[in-house]
Amino acid sequence: MNEQLQELERKARRAKSATRKLACLPTATKNGALRAIAAALRDTREPVLEANREDYEEARASGMSESMLDRLLLTSSRIESMADDVLTVAALPDPIGQTFGSRTLPNGLQLAKRRVPLGVIAAIYESRPNVTIDISSLCLKSGNATILRGGKEALRSNKVLVTIVQDACRVAGVPDGAVEFIESTDHALVGQLLRMRQYVDLVIPRGRAELIRLVADNATMAVVTGGIGVCHAYVDKSADLDMALRIVDNAKVQRPTVCNALDCVLVHRDVADAFLPRLAGLWQSEGVEMRCDTEVLALLGDSAGRGTVAATEEDWGREFLALVAAVKVVGSLDEALEHIERYGSGHSEAIVTEDYSSANRFVAEADAACVYVNASTRFTDGSQFGLGAEIGISTQKFHARGPMALEEITSYKWVALGTGQIRE
Amino acid sequence: MNEQLQELERKARRAKSATRKLACLPTATKNGALRAIAAALRDTREPVLEANREDYEEARASGMSESMLDRLLLTSSRIESMADDVLTVAALPDPIGQTFGSRTLPNGLQLAKRRVPLGVIAAIYESRPNVTIDISSLCLKSGNATILRGGKEALRSNKVLVTIVQDACRVAGVPDGAVEFIESTDHALVGQLLRMRQYVDLVIPRGRAELIRLVADNATMAVVTGGIGVCHAYVDKSADLDMALRIVDNAKVQRPTVCNALDCVLVHRDVADAFLPRLAGLWQSEGVEMRCDTEVLALLGDSAGRGTVAATEEDWGREFLALVAAVKVVGSLDEALEHIERYGSGHSEAIVTEDYSSANRFVAEADAACVYVNASTRFTDGSQFGLGAEIGISTQKFHARGPMALEEITSYKWVALGTGQIRE
Repeated sequence: MNEQLQELERKARRAKSATRKLACLPTATKNGALRAIAAALRDTREPVLEANREDYEEARASGMSESMLDRLLLTSSRIESMADDVLTVAALPDPIGQTFGSRTLPNGLQLAKRRVPLGVIAAIYESRPNVTIDISSLCLKSGNATILRGGKEALRSNKVLVTIVQDACRVAGVPDGAVEFIESTDHALVGQLLRMRQYVDLVIPRGRAELIRLVADNATMAVVTGGIGVCHAYVDKSADLDMALRIVDNAKVQRPTVCNALDCVLVHRDVADAFLPRLAGLWQSEGVEMRCDTEVLALLGDSAGRGTVAATEEDWGREFLALVAAVKVVGSLDEALEHIERYGSGHSEAIVTEDYSSANRFVAEADAACVYVNASTRFTDGSQFGLGAEIGISTQKFHARGPMALEEITSYKWVALGTGQIRE
Repeated sequence: MNEQLQELERKARRAKSATRKLACLPTATKNGALRAIAAALRDTREPVLEANREDYEEARASGMSESMLDRLLLTSSRIESMADDVLTVAALPDPIGQTFGSRTLPNGLQLAKRRVPLGVIAAIYESRPNVTIDISSLCLKSGNATILRGGKEALRSNKVLVTIVQDACRVAGVPDGAVEFIESTDHALVGQLLRMRQYVDLVIPRGRAELIRLVADNATMAVVTGGIGVCHAYVDKSADLDMALRIVDNAKVQRPTVCNALDCVLVHRDVADAFLPRLAGLWQSEGVEMRCDTEVLALLGDSAGRGTVAATEEDWGREFLALVAAVKVVGSLDEALEHIERYGSGHSEAIVTEDYSSANRFVAEADAACVYVNASTRFTDGSQFGLGAEIGISTQKFHARGPMALEEITSYKWVALGTGQIRE
């Protein structure tokens, strides 16, 4: 352990000491490394697949769930799509060096904010080996050094992928320490890493809620938490019910396993009779289970065979990640907002309404990273939003909120260009 | 203690529950409260001065240092200037509700970021009672709830000031809980407060380095650290030496007790002969003590009577807050940058140069909140930068860097206005 800790400290120090050069690295060098990573992913697919097969077999033998196994699995086409994503990042504008907020003071001092990297970003993640490539490429492009700590279940895959990244960096002229990988899967090392405020500027946990909570509770540096989406759609009494049906259905069914999928439908009492039977009919045919409050049950009847069951208290505020939704009747917009305030996770919330004031109030008062009027919550996504890529979705308010792309992992410095100005 | 803890939790919960109303409070209501605070400060000066006299006498009797006593002291004209500052904040544009980053997606979904408050901001500070008014007024204007925890030495002054703020809020129609004040000066309560991540979104420590470190080490929520300025000026070999003298002198002497004052002068060897004797002559007449490396001493001679003494290792990287400066000869811009990287605190760094490439490199490579070419570091200040006010100066890279005004204590939400868009 002591040796592992020294190794961790050595890597963290190396990452830190790379930051000064990384901050000034030409865009062409960074893009060269990214293109080399994409090329190597395509050319040396076999060792990646081989390592992943071993990880996968071991995980399956250990009894890992199907959904986790699916996240762990790499295929030739998944590697192809990882390479495509790296090329997308290469094609994005370099955020570093952009200036904004410029002004000239009355004394002639020219002042502007100039975008700079954050420094060292540590990522602590589970199963999905593509995170290794995603985070490396976004950090490279934004001039940040990275310390990667993947899960034990993906260790062989991650090692091969990191070697591809590090080799590409070396050839392209990116300084050593730009991408560091922690091989040891000893849990105690995560605790050590979270105390290294002197080396690490930001830590990003990616994975299950427990991992995110563990990191948030123990990190002594900045953390971006997110990725947990308990998403609501409120069908207002003035809603276009055809539109409401399309939006609610899309938000739940189009891809139920992701964080921006719908978890709870709130329906205004005045339209419950007209809306809920239609929704129940549609969802029965699609196999969506409805966990209903007593009023919804009274309206639809309680029948697991027809897909309706009584909701328990735990169903409010639950992220289902499956073809299951909680359904509740509310008496007013206020009641809907109170429900969302109490049970929402600050990710994505939607209202379906034709009423101008209700739309305005919902947008102002629903406290979430993304609030929607008459649209599906499924749009909360960096590439859907036109940001080109995504390092995660922040549900906190500090630093960045919602989809985080390149700009969101930068900082800025104030640059003041003078001609001898002194303060009177 | 248990009762105090319950009281703290009650206040924190009250602040949290005020945030939804505060986020939607009309600008006129917020400005009405601010104008009422300013008026009350002017009209009820006597009870403030009376409470402050008691704090001051007790602090003096307990042996508090002169500089700390000066920070504690309120006078009629200081209260006047506090009232003026509150009116300045009232006159600033309301940041809340501003939209930016707007775009329309190919499917017609209209997307924009809308500025919202952070939520609950806790301030932990020492001695200066004006911080009570500063932080309250900036948080009010930006729709944030505040939990104030001032120092024991200013308790009586702070209590009267908080009553003024809370009364003004009530009359103006600001919801209860907008400004909460912790009366207990039990140190353990700070530890408790720093663990209340469920209520507090951001904590801002204001005071000595130990306080800031204590908060940064123990807070489980976001922290903005700053206010420690170890500031350097590098006089390049190509510098206009008259300009260099003016800038270095201004940065050190104009107000030595503040964080943006100069602490260390780095002089290129090629101009040391021409520059240092002039600087030493000027500073001798102004009573500035020079703590010199061996090369500077060899040039100027070691004589405490003439204001030059040998520097110790601790003098590099020290924030003097007094008429003292460390002085060192360097052989190159690289050496200057390395010194700054090693000893700077990331606050404000300046170069004096006529060389285009040196200026560019310094701006790119000196890693600080504010980097200056041919200007005094004394400009690092919210109102000098034209931001109108200042809640502190951040030396971290996360969320906000440099002077923090209203915009820097806000977050944003993504607002998506649709016409029935669903994801294909």
